[in-house]
Amino acid sequence: MATKTDYLFRIEPQDVDFTQRAKISSIMTMILNTAGLDADSKNFGIEYLNKNNHSWVLSRMSLEIDFRPPQYSMCKISTWVNEYERLLSTRNFTLELENGDSFARAVTQWAIIDLNSRTAINLSQHGLSENGTLVNEPSPTTKAIRIGNITPTKTKKYEVVYSDIDFNKHANTVSYIKIALDMLPIAFFENENKIRLDMHFIRECHLGEILSINSDIRNNQAHFEIQREDNSVAFRAFLNISY
Amino acid sequence: MATKTDYLFRIEPQDVDFTQRAKISSIMTMILNTAGLDADSKNFGIEYLNKNNHSWVLSRMSLEIDFRPPQYSMCKISTWVNEYERLLSTRNFTLELENGDSFARAVTQWAIIDLNSRTAINLSQHGLSENGTLVNEPSPTTKAIRIGNITPTKTKKYEVVYSDIDFNKHANTVSYIKIALDMLPIAFFENENKIRLDMHFIRECHLGEILSINSDIRNNQAHFEIQREDNSVAFRAFLNISY
Repeated sequence: MATKTDYLFRIEPQDVDFTQRAKISSIMTMILNTAGLDADSKNFGIEYLNKNNHSWVLSRMSLEIDFRPPQYSMCKISTWVNEYERLLSTRNFTLELENGDSFARAVTQWAIIDLNSRTAINLSQHGLSENGTLVNEPSPTTKAIRIGNITPTKTKKYEVVYSDIDFNKHANTVSYIKIALDMLPIAFFENENKIRLDMHFIRECHLGEILSINSDIRNNQAHFEIQREDNSVAFRAFLNISY
Repeated sequence: MATKTDYLFRIEPQDVDFTQRAKISSIMTMILNTAGLDADSKNFGIEYLNKNNHSWVLSRMSLEIDFRPPQYSMCKISTWVNEYERLLSTRNFTLELENGDSFARAVTQWAIIDLNSRTAINLSQHGLSENGTLVNEPSPTTKAIRIGNITPTKTKKYEVVYSDIDFNKHANTVSYIKIALDMLPIAFFENENKIRLDMHFIRECHLGEILSINSDIRNNQAHFEIQREDNSVAFRAFLNISY
């Protein structure tokens, strides 16, 4: 049995929005960087999988934020894996400030894909359940909920550009939610209380592709769907903010 | 007389492009964060100026990059001010890796504006030449060159969104160059040798404004001009890459 591991981050000037508090996308970046560092340090990360031409891919994520920390805050992220299903592993995160105040938590579900066939493989192939990486501690919140088709009330075209892409020349994970949240009136983030965000990462988007960003915004809730040029859905999200 | 001051940064996963090396915009972010930290630590930064409803504004910047460091590199930025003219002060930067290898340098020119009238004020009003902040050391390269009108060969519309804005709800300094470089074929950044970038920050752009990003790209050079809705020029840049 493993134990939780802690990582430290600082909220830098480029991480905050016009309210001078960390953007949701910056909090997601901290979380995903933690996942990468932790998996690599325990020898079941991208580095290890790439040797077999496999890679981790984020499939679903739930994120709850109680408050967004101000610029220059020091944050501690604790992470642990508590489940290996046939195709998905569950990695958890809790986020707190230096003084111990908890401000966010997340549950992520990851698949391993074969980089040639781009399909998910059975996790048992890597013997992850038996490698001592599981931590016997429940997830800090519920997994991402199901999100169905939406009837968009607002649509915008978006071209995947240089700043969005990773080493595969695919739009990186955080760019989906950044592009989606840029559709909202900024009043959403002026004085919000708690945030809950559920996300499904369904397909990859490529450099130069013209995406349709569809949204259905009602009061303090928003559904998002990102469609590729071939009309297939690449990403879905549901945002719920309390004021 | 003051001395140079050093700041440390790490190239994080969100700072690199598809080549896994630091983006130009990330290097600019490190440089501008350094300027803010150094000025605040010596009591002539935004915090001090805001008391008089004044603020520093970046007017021009030259940036030379010999090579872009890979992910997780530790970088040391040294900074010093070596000139106060009537309206512009000159702040310099040299960037090196942990092993002492120099990889970039920059010269920035800053004005102080009155936040009500949005006009530049005479620097002597704050007695900066006499406050012991000058360092008697030449700039590490030439200041930004003059950049005239361009005849664009490619134009793109761009709406200023939530992710681009600072606390004033203006597009932040780095967003201009990010938007401009997103116009280039990514081959520009695949195997480049040295980079020289000259930038003029002329006017502010506001949330929701639809900008025209004009470019004239020839071989290994590119001119950029960002125009606001009223056709006034907000930003100009000249990029020169050697291969």
